[in-house]
Amino acid sequence: VRTVRVCFDRGSYPVRVGGGLLREAGNILANAGFAAPPVLVTNPRVWRLHGSALLSGLEPTFGKIHRVVIGDGERFKNHATLSLIYDGLFRARADRHSWILAFGGGVVGDVAGFAAATFMRGIAFVNVPTTLLAQVDSSIGGKVGINVPQGKNLVGAFHQPSAVLSDTSVLRTLVPRELAAGLYEVVKSGAIRSEPLVRYLETTLPQILGGDPECLERAVVAASRIKAHVVAADEREKGLRMILNFGHTLGHALEAATDYRRFKHGEAVAWGMAAALGFGVETGVTDPGDSHRLATLIHRVEKLPGLGGIEFDDLWTSLERDKKFRSGRLRIVLIRRVGEAEICADVDRRGLRRYLKQFVRRPGGVEA
Amino acid sequence: VRTVRVCFDRGSYPVRVGGGLLREAGNILANAGFAAPPVLVTNPRVWRLHGSALLSGLEPTFGKIHRVVIGDGERFKNHATLSLIYDGLFRARADRHSWILAFGGGVVGDVAGFAAATFMRGIAFVNVPTTLLAQVDSSIGGKVGINVPQGKNLVGAFHQPSAVLSDTSVLRTLVPRELAAGLYEVVKSGAIRSEPLVRYLETTLPQILGGDPECLERAVVAASRIKAHVVAADEREKGLRMILNFGHTLGHALEAATDYRRFKHGEAVAWGMAAALGFGVETGVTDPGDSHRLATLIHRVEKLPGLGGIEFDDLWTSLERDKKFRSGRLRIVLIRRVGEAEICADVDRRGLRRYLKQFVRRPGGVEA
Repeated sequence: VRTVRVCFDRGSYPVRVGGGLLREAGNILANAGFAAPPVLVTNPRVWRLHGSALLSGLEPTFGKIHRVVIGDGERFKNHATLSLIYDGLFRARADRHSWILAFGGGVVGDVAGFAAATFMRGIAFVNVPTTLLAQVDSSIGGKVGINVPQGKNLVGAFHQPSAVLSDTSVLRTLVPRELAAGLYEVVKSGAIRSEPLVRYLETTLPQILGGDPECLERAVVAASRIKAHVVAADEREKGLRMILNFGHTLGHALEAATDYRRFKHGEAVAWGMAAALGFGVETGVTDPGDSHRLATLIHRVEKLPGLGGIEFDDLWTSLERDKKFRSGRLRIVLIRRVGEAEICADVDRRGLRRYLKQFVRRPGGVEA
Repeated sequence: VRTVRVCFDRGSYPVRVGGGLLREAGNILANAGFAAPPVLVTNPRVWRLHGSALLSGLEPTFGKIHRVVIGDGERFKNHATLSLIYDGLFRARADRHSWILAFGGGVVGDVAGFAAATFMRGIAFVNVPTTLLAQVDSSIGGKVGINVPQGKNLVGAFHQPSAVLSDTSVLRTLVPRELAAGLYEVVKSGAIRSEPLVRYLETTLPQILGGDPECLERAVVAASRIKAHVVAADEREKGLRMILNFGHTLGHALEAATDYRRFKHGEAVAWGMAAALGFGVETGVTDPGDSHRLATLIHRVEKLPGLGGIEFDDLWTSLERDKKFRSGRLRIVLIRRVGEAEICADVDRRGLRRYLKQFVRRPGGVEA
């Protein structure tokens, strides 16, 4: 088990990464000071696959655990699910000393975390992420929230977890597409902050995609460490933290323009990274060799769902609605060289529009 | 105009108190660094009475102001109203640099503040409280939130305003009962922290209830200063801040047991303070002379709605559901002497129950 510590202005918390952590959860959390049982939030699939392992870890320490089972999928990251969690907390007679254990992927972590942020003005929560995407990205950093009809993550809070337990052995049950989708965020982490991580991925990609435990664990630790460093430097996304959005501006727009059906989040981010690399080369920011190197790695992960049939005007409208994109000035994260990101403020809006229009028709760099 | 500064861990903000501030709002807020126009949240009554004064203050600086008008009253402090405010923000094309101006009483401040706390993970807001209760209490300290079917303020956040503008001249339009209800929170402030404030109220009560501007302003400043000091010492209610709950444990229960219809919040708190004084004397914590002095002052403010017909069991159930009251140990704020509060942990539950049962039947100290 490896530990990464995340520091923020009011404290710090550990991210523990390793195989078999679910069965150790009770000990780890008791050592972290938790005494009362949590209210556990999960989804049916995760519970069916891994519930017994987690219970075997928790029950000897905490006794009977209250459980709230929410719908599986992005469309359940909404106010109705939030209410369901509040109801579960009330039924469990939770008070401001109670805590939530979020057991699932990004949706579970985001909505359960937001419930924790707002229940009685904030209670503690622990993330036990079960997808690669959640382990390397969404479980760390305290961004929690829900979607509203106007867009994704537009209602939320910054509320840091008290601990993150990333059991890499649960990644074995991910379907290949989901593992790949998570891996794009690892590629992103390397692209913005760590050439060695990119090199490691280039070398071990087949093992990682094949589920090799040691390689997966190393990748999760490396990406968690990058996320932890960036979040520690800029908890509330005033500056540096924006580099984590590399590929996300177009990625979110692609998800929205296809009604969140065609792409997994990581896949949309993969397209967004490919586009940002190309745009970076065109505008002279990105080294062409480094762009090629990263695009090749992205390409090797899996065959991405194509961009065919997407109306560019829908895409651009979604993109302009993005909260990172809205305030007058247009900002986008580009890569200077592998491991080195740059937040480009005042990007030429018309130039980007022209580039993306062409990209969506005939994406270069990554072949669909 | 007098200024009280509230300090908290991430910064500080000014509470400005004085007559005629609405017409100065634009200048004051421009000086505070606000450039874009706010999204203004208000209710129909406040807007009808004071909207033109505020607009005359804001429009020369900010131009056209987007406005969201929400229902008037505690029953509108809910998720539906929150959604209405989010909708208004989206219609105004708000982004994470936008800000909310909450213009009204405690309900407006709480729900608009919670919208600000959660819209795009937190935007700025300014409180312009228009009731005495909101000026001396709820506008300061960053407690924001909504009610849910299970109880009041059970969903919320700590989100400090960027500024508070308390225009004491708007207090002239309060009906006497509402002015009196707010005054109980001023009595509370004195009871827990300032014998001189209690003395001032004893001397000037007729002028204050008669709407004398200078006396009202002094009372608002004194209570704001006490609130600011307590909040600065304990933003997140881990300790000292609990003393602000003097009278509130029973107060909230009385409101809940009567479906929030019979009492104004301040009136319920008045009953709660009277009960806590009596219980304090009975348990030897409160000086009997000081209890009598404070009960007399409470009694002089107005004739309180009576306690007749309240089922004690309903009251006790509500009380046990209170979030300050829930975690195993029972805590209650008592007064040692005028100006000196004490958080009593591990209060004898049966003793309190017996005392309150008798109090509700035949309240001593304060005659209804």
